[in-house]
Amino acid sequence: MNNIQMYRHKDDDTEVISTLQEAIPHIVDRLAASCKRPDSLDHVDPMPFPSQEEVVGIIHQVRKIVFPGYYTKARIDHTNLSNVLGKECSELYDRLLGQLVLSLQHPCLNSGTPCLDCLATSGQIAFKFVNYLPGLREILSLDARAALEGDPAAKSFDEIIFSYPGLFAIAVYRIAHFLYREGIPLLPRMMTEYAHSRTGIDIHPGARIGESFFIDHGTGVVIGETTEIGDRVRLYQGVTLGALSIPKDKVKEFRKRKRHPTIEDDVIIYSNATILGPKAVIGARSVIGGNVWITEPVPPDTKVILKRPELVYIGKNRQGSQGEC
Amino acid sequence: MNNIQMYRHKDDDTEVISTLQEAIPHIVDRLAASCKRPDSLDHVDPMPFPSQEEVVGIIHQVRKIVFPGYYTKARIDHTNLSNVLGKECSELYDRLLGQLVLSLQHPCLNSGTPCLDCLATSGQIAFKFVNYLPGLREILSLDARAALEGDPAAKSFDEIIFSYPGLFAIAVYRIAHFLYREGIPLLPRMMTEYAHSRTGIDIHPGARIGESFFIDHGTGVVIGETTEIGDRVRLYQGVTLGALSIPKDKVKEFRKRKRHPTIEDDVIIYSNATILGPKAVIGARSVIGGNVWITEPVPPDTKVILKRPELVYIGKNRQGSQGEC
Amino acid sequence: MNNIQMYRHKDDDTEVISTLQEAIPHIVDRLAASCKRPDSLDHVDPMPFPSQEEVVGIIHQVRKIVFPGYYTKARIDHTNLSNVLGKECSELYDRLLGQLVLSLQHPCLNSGTPCLDCLATSGQIAFKFVNYLPGLREILSLDARAALEGDPAAKSFDEIIFSYPGLFAIAVYRIAHFLYREGIPLLPRMMTEYAHSRTGIDIHPGARIGESFFIDHGTGVVIGETTEIGDRVRLYQGVTLGALSIPKDKVKEFRKRKRHPTIEDDVIIYSNATILGPKAVIGARSVIGGNVWITEPVPPDTKVILKRPELVYIGKNRQGSQGEC
Repeated sequence: MNNIQMYRHKDDDTEVISTLQEAIPHIVDRLAASCKRPDSLDHVDPMPFPSQEEVVGIIHQVRKIVFPGYYTKARIDHTNLSNVLGKECSELYDRLLGQLVLSLQHPCLNSGTPCLDCLATSGQIAFKFVNYLPGLREILSLDARAALEGDPAAKSFDEIIFSYPGLFAIAVYRIAHFLYREGIPLLPRMMTEYAHSRTGIDIHPGARIGESFFIDHGTGVVIGETTEIGDRVRLYQGVTLGALSIPKDKVKEFRKRKRHPTIEDDVIIYSNATILGPKAVIGARSVIGGNVWITEPVPPDTKVILKRPELVYIGKNRQGSQGEC
Repeated sequence: MNNIQMYRHKDDDTEVISTLQEAIPHIVDRLAASCKRPDSLDHVDPMPFPSQEEVVGIIHQVRKIVFPGYYTKARIDHTNLSNVLGKECSELYDRLLGQLVLSLQHPCLNSGTPCLDCLATSGQIAFKFVNYLPGLREILSLDARAALEGDPAAKSFDEIIFSYPGLFAIAVYRIAHFLYREGIPLLPRMMTEYAHSRTGIDIHPGARIGESFFIDHGTGVVIGETTEIGDRVRLYQGVTLGALSIPKDKVKEFRKRKRHPTIEDDVIIYSNATILGPKAVIGARSVIGGNVWITEPVPPDTKVILKRPELVYIGKNRQGSQGEC
Repeated sequence: MNNIQMYRHKDDDTEVISTLQEAIPHIVDRLAASCKRPDSLDHVDPMPFPSQEEVVGIIHQVRKIVFPGYYTKARIDHTNLSNVLGKECSELYDRLLGQLVLSLQHPCLNSGTPCLDCLATSGQIAFKFVNYLPGLREILSLDARAALEGDPAAKSFDEIIFSYPGLFAIAVYRIAHFLYREGIPLLPRMMTEYAHSRTGIDIHPGARIGESFFIDHGTGVVIGETTEIGDRVRLYQGVTLGALSIPKDKVKEFRKRKRHPTIEDDVIIYSNATILGPKAVIGARSVIGGNVWITEPVPPDTKVILKRPELVYIGKNRQGSQGEC
């Protein structure tokens, strides 16, 4: 650091230094000027946004409450359990309330006809969420059980709760989905994108997903906004439940439509399968094989697999060029 | 924050506030009651678990020792090298010992017939691990060399050690595999899941992998628990070495069986290839092309590629709907 | 911790302890000895490397400057905008200068004929970069607009700037590419690998990418070093723009050649498509369907899709074994 400071002041190449000193105001002017254009992508505005740090903090606090003892440094036993849970629930209410207010006020104040209810609405939703925690604990326990029953490599619930990315992504999705259904903007997508970043599993908070859901490995999984998934469904890495292509001029019109598949109860979808569009209704108890690409309905109790590809075997004396690096 | 506190105490909507104050004890009761059920997913127990933070700390400390000078802020030269390494090795022993004790005691005390040897066993394994560090340094150097030789975009060892996710994932796997073979529960999977989260590469600590292993790009790679991989093998992004589907009622029975492929020496597997099941033994020096799906053995010195798919070209006047978004 | 310390000193199994105390010097000797071999992978050298932490800090500081108000805790409005931007630009110059010096000096001093210009060159490049910030702001605004126009699930610019991994990866790429073109070693790859780790999107800083670029979901995307991409191109998750396989003895020779595809203006490439090699020039306005594997040129205004795979439907009474777990 000293080297660098000295360099800035002592270097013979004074053109650079003097140019920098003169240049910064001009650079700043160009940056600031573009912030005054009507279509500028900036948030030069006294109203703060929700905070990514707080969003992450809320997720981890919910996890502490719904799986007591797993993520806390302090030991929890039956003598202090209620006190710890009470303290965590009450803190969570405060943190969530703070972020809900920031999420709701921002578009509300910008709407031209601001409501006066953002604060009260935020309080009601934060309360509803805290009240949902016992139910969330039940449904996440079912998800953890589905992992233990679905994966021969799973050794214990401890292992699943500590190290299964699928359970983490589903937990974050269930938190975000609750807030999405309450009409909260921004916050739900910030939550699921945090899970996406950590796990490679991208579940839109608008998707509707039943009980006992299991995603194994999970990297590359995409579940779109209007996807519906029944109970006891199992997915593997790289599965896409996506939308069909939309002509550019119709993007707005499609925003509110069902665009994604429906997966009924007890379906299994193996790695890298791609299921696209609202017509793709996968019937109950069906199995979709790896790498399959589907845009049409599949009846219940059906197994869909690719015809075994004809492989070409080439001896070592021939050089091909199909590889990739 | 002040705003929010004021809101809680001043808002007219006192129903919300009073309900919250009254409600929290009831919510806590529901959460706590479910913790007393025999099948409850909680850890309300005075015995602490291993710590994710400490596990991450151990991984980074090992990296500092096996690639000296790359990850340390303080400068290392030949005058202080031995002192730095000695201090790091001794600290690593203490940290690892702490986590090993927590990993071993937990299932032991819960087993009904606790042994009295967890502490001594942990000490022996921590010692064995520290003693393994020079060997780990040798084998990871071979892995780094394999990256330099296998990737035309690689500019230097510095670049590989600093910025190749494959090398990071392999290093964590080799640490975790050592502990897995010593019979340590939980800790090895916490380690490899940390690498999975950072790199998108999911290697089960039970897999057996030879020397000079290279994974390029890596996102989406899955290597299952009973996979065996020889020397000088190279994989690309999205490769799955997985297990075939198992009927739900046989999951327990399959836990101890070989379920995953065997990859012999000098094999190359290109991006998004999927190789499944214990019959899939890929013979030495074979090359598996991208997107290939294999469940059967492949002889040595063979190249397996998909038949070039027949592509359908449609001019700009026709609208299709195969896309996805 | 107390437990563990006590254990080390009190345990009867003194063999372990005494062996450890005796063993550490021997372990250190083996580690240190290998650091003196000519081909050793270590950095036992008084010259420090660039710091991963600083590299991450630089990326986040650039984001604060080019999207003002989105990532800052302090509120920004038009009264303090210029002051905030001026302070951030000036700090960024200092931080970047520090890392550029470390990146350039290291290979320079090791080259045998060190130049005396590393400091001056670093200053010039840091200045050039700060001067590029208004242009970077313009080009990233176009990228954000392309996301809003391309994704029916996108609700607002706020959502895109806060939670679209594609925009983050592209921003980091554009920063890294600037430094790559200036000939800076190490730093550009450290930057793009940080984005890869957070998003699953692996863009080599050497790739050349036009305006209004959009990557949706993004996990598993790989864009190789010599790829060229035109304006208004859109990619989905799992797309590989890679190189064909190169015989091991020709890796060095291929380092400076064009090895990757060219994607012309207005092309859309759907999920998990793989496009390999320099012959694969995808003509303007063409659409590449999901899962397609291409190594040859595609004319402009063409849609390339896989022939619909023939699916095999099996009723519930037959057990197949194509699945994977």
